[in-house]
Amino acid sequence: MKVVEIRPPYLIFLGSESRATYAKTGAGLAQWRPELCSGQLRLAADTVDLGLPDLTLEQAAEAGVGSLVIGTAAVGGGIPEDWYPVLREALSRGIDVVAGAHKRLAEVPGLSESAAAGGAQLVDVRVPPAELPVGTGKKRRGKRLLMVGTDCAVGKKYSALCLERDMRAAGMKADFRASGQTGIMIAGCGIPMDAVVSDFLSGAAEILSPDNDDDHWDVIEGQGGLFHPGYSSVSTGLLIGSQPDAFVVCHEAGRERISGWDDFPLPSIEDVIARTVELGVLVNPAIHCVGVCVNTSSLAEDERKSYLAQLEKRLVLPCVDPLIDGAEAIVRGLR
Amino acid sequence: MKVVEIRPPYLIFLGSESRATYAKTGAGLAQWRPELCSGQLRLAADTVDLGLPDLTLEQAAEAGVGSLVIGTAAVGGGIPEDWYPVLREALSRGIDVVAGAHKRLAEVPGLSESAAAGGAQLVDVRVPPAELPVGTGKKRRGKRLLMVGTDCAVGKKYSALCLERDMRAAGMKADFRASGQTGIMIAGCGIPMDAVVSDFLSGAAEILSPDNDDDHWDVIEGQGGLFHPGYSSVSTGLLIGSQPDAFVVCHEAGRERISGWDDFPLPSIEDVIARTVELGVLVNPAIHCVGVCVNTSSLAEDERKSYLAQLEKRLVLPCVDPLIDGAEAIVRGLR
Repeated sequence: MKVVEIRPPYLIFLGSESRATYAKTGAGLAQWRPELCSGQLRLAADTVDLGLPDLTLEQAAEAGVGSLVIGTAAVGGGIPEDWYPVLREALSRGIDVVAGAHKRLAEVPGLSESAAAGGAQLVDVRVPPAELPVGTGKKRRGKRLLMVGTDCAVGKKYSALCLERDMRAAGMKADFRASGQTGIMIAGCGIPMDAVVSDFLSGAAEILSPDNDDDHWDVIEGQGGLFHPGYSSVSTGLLIGSQPDAFVVCHEAGRERISGWDDFPLPSIEDVIARTVELGVLVNPAIHCVGVCVNTSSLAEDERKSYLAQLEKRLVLPCVDPLIDGAEAIVRGLR
Repeated sequence: MKVVEIRPPYLIFLGSESRATYAKTGAGLAQWRPELCSGQLRLAADTVDLGLPDLTLEQAAEAGVGSLVIGTAAVGGGIPEDWYPVLREALSRGIDVVAGAHKRLAEVPGLSESAAAGGAQLVDVRVPPAELPVGTGKKRRGKRLLMVGTDCAVGKKYSALCLERDMRAAGMKADFRASGQTGIMIAGCGIPMDAVVSDFLSGAAEILSPDNDDDHWDVIEGQGGLFHPGYSSVSTGLLIGSQPDAFVVCHEAGRERISGWDDFPLPSIEDVIARTVELGVLVNPAIHCVGVCVNTSSLAEDERKSYLAQLEKRLVLPCVDPLIDGAEAIVRGLR
């Protein structure tokens, strides 16, 4: 399978980052994949604490850690120089180094040499696999559930993770399929769709959710939005290649404009449902919407309940804030 | 402007290619940009003849030729070894070398050195410019006419070139904007959309047709097709970034399935019109279809006429085979 792959278990590297908001990747890993996280490595006393055991690189190597995963996002996407010796030591001890920075790991002085010496890999999760195919449109076995959004950054990744969790809890076969860098770190594999050359977009999406058991669901992280002036082509390629049987619309309560593109009003959830069906029917005549996941963090508790109740009435679909309510209401409809 | 640019005038390099069908790029240049073609360079007596003066590299350099343009497409997209000394000599004489092969020119032994020595450039038209922006969706000045297709390879490039020619003949300001490699060679500049990283697709399309005079038309070469299972995302990005005021649907008479994707029926022209308007209205509320260009090469003359007449009646739009009828009927509607 031509996807980016990360070798478990992980040691989460937090550098000396003291601000929780810049350690979201590490926090996401600790929250969603605690069973894969052996520990954390922090360089200073006030570094963010994910509640994982603090391990030295020596201890991590002894414990069989597969990858040192950089769990922070520095402004500018760079790799600070004081990390270099840490990364080199990890590699010489045979531990892969995994990063989602703009700068490629191989450009950091000494890393390639240390990796060769230790028999370890440099894994850039922003770099898509080579030799992706053009999309075939051929029907694959198994079922697929795609997240689509009214905009970017409305909770598509966390909605997919909640759905995977609740589908598994209900005894269903389900796997989260990551299409962006943080999702790939959480899933341990995936394809960074936004970095794929455009000719191969739907082909990459086909590779991301390959043939599977008839009763197996791929729960696919969405990207962008079909009504987004910058990213609609990424969303289109992911939709066409995913061939979803079902989709969930993700939305943030109160958002009225495309974030960062203020000339563009947010599409209605109904618009997103109609457009997704219209485009997706090309590759799957059965495509239909099975629910709506709303980030209601801007609403008070009573507002939240009435907002979701009104939305359910309007759309006649289960509408939840998956981080608060869970996604069982949507999962029930899928079974 | 962040586009691939080719320095005129051109010497068309045909190697020893004896089959006209493999010299289409050179033939397209000679047909559509004769004023830019100073001559041709052929390595064997039976090499395809484009009707241009045969020039040696020495004569070409004396005549001020700017670029040696490789006008053939070898199977596999490679560059044969017996061309290496020719390309090196051109570069040492200060003539740029322009290629659309998969293999990058810099990978051919000695070319970079010859280019440096002669002060010439290696121009790979398949390689998009670096640092393309994300699409903004902001309205630009000037008017834009986009080619869209029922499929790939239905005549979008030649339709755009016919329209540019006939718009100029009618006294309109018009420029062909190339979005594929052969188009770029003909236009002398452009962006190979299919090679752009997906996050920057609509941004690249915005760069391709920048601000211009209010009465100026960019005539934009289309790519793929909105109903294509492999390439619809490329078409979407080009549509959203182009913000077309008007579009022409290109079609091949008799084609019933997506070429190479035989499970997929060809969309109707009406479907393509409706979908293009539906998506394009996001960035230009005025978008509308102004005509249909049909490749009727598979039809006899009487069939051709009745086919186009029936189509005009059905669509209530000018329908032409631009290579036979010209595109004046469509241009009249635009004025």
